[in-house]
Amino acid sequence: MCDSLKFTDRSEAGKIEDTTLFAPKYDANGLIVAVAIDYKTKEPLMLAYMNEESLKMTLEKKEAVYYSRSRQELWHKGATSGHVQKIKEIRTDCDQDALILSVEQLGAGACHTGRESCFYRSVEVEDGKAVTKLAGDVAQTFDPEAVYGMK
Amino acid sequence: MCDSLKFTDRSEAGKIEDTTLFAPKYDANGLIVAVAIDYKTKEPLMLAYMNEESLKMTLEKKEAVYYSRSRQELWHKGATSGHVQKIKEIRTDCDQDALILSVEQLGAGACHTGRESCFYRSVEVEDGKAVTKLAGDVAQTFDPEAVYGMK
Repeated sequence: MCDSLKFTDRSEAGKIEDTTLFAPKYDANGLIVAVAIDYKTKEPLMLAYMNEESLKMTLEKKEAVYYSRSRQELWHKGATSGHVQKIKEIRTDCDQDALILSVEQLGAGACHTGRESCFYRSVEVEDGKAVTKLAGDVAQTFDPEAVYGMK
Repeated sequence: MCDSLKFTDRSEAGKIEDTTLFAPKYDANGLIVAVAIDYKTKEPLMLAYMNEESLKMTLEKKEAVYYSRSRQELWHKGATSGHVQKIKEIRTDCDQDALILSVEQLGAGACHTGRESCFYRSVEVEDGKAVTKLAGDVAQTFDPEAVYGMK
């Protein structure tokens, strides 16, 4: 579906901080990092990766499509859970090697643990040891077993 | 300085989504991705990487210390520009392979281009081609040449 959408090759983009061309930089595995945030509250929801195909699908469908590194396949977020992320805006950074997706998160949440956001724990130091603590502002909004068939 | 701070080995952390232990997962290069956001507005400021040493320094100094992939060295943000990022909170995600830093950005901005945030361009599709556009809400707040000695 995405053969028609064109990106610019990095070598032809000019000064990457100033160009109006989109010439994303992929890592050694052909991936670019993408952070989904809530388009209203700006709360970070999740961080994942895209390859060129999934990024083009995201731009065309206006729904977040990632590339699953563990499953090594395209991952249309919400295809299983119904928790689709509607794209409101995509931003890239100065060197075009990272993306911020402002999304409307459909369904109960972004995280496979049943929470609104994957970032539900803070990192703190106690007695010389780093520990995590549940942040009070991220709700458990659904039963992951019911949605994903897993605990 | 950071020999005293202990992280937990992944193999000893138990179920990583539920543990109260901090057992960060690094990529093949020994790095973990970190997104700095404004602690008040939640506006994304920049995305960079940390190795274990810089992450421990960040937790101990309560200032963001990254690892520069291009320079292959520790990068205490603000050491050159004065634009230090004071850590208000660090969050990790369900599988502990990503970090969100809520920071107080000192000085005029986070981006080496002289802007408050590195995410100053949106990505849009025009006539089958992806282009970038300056987002109206990210101000040019300082002269990068004056601060970094570069354009």
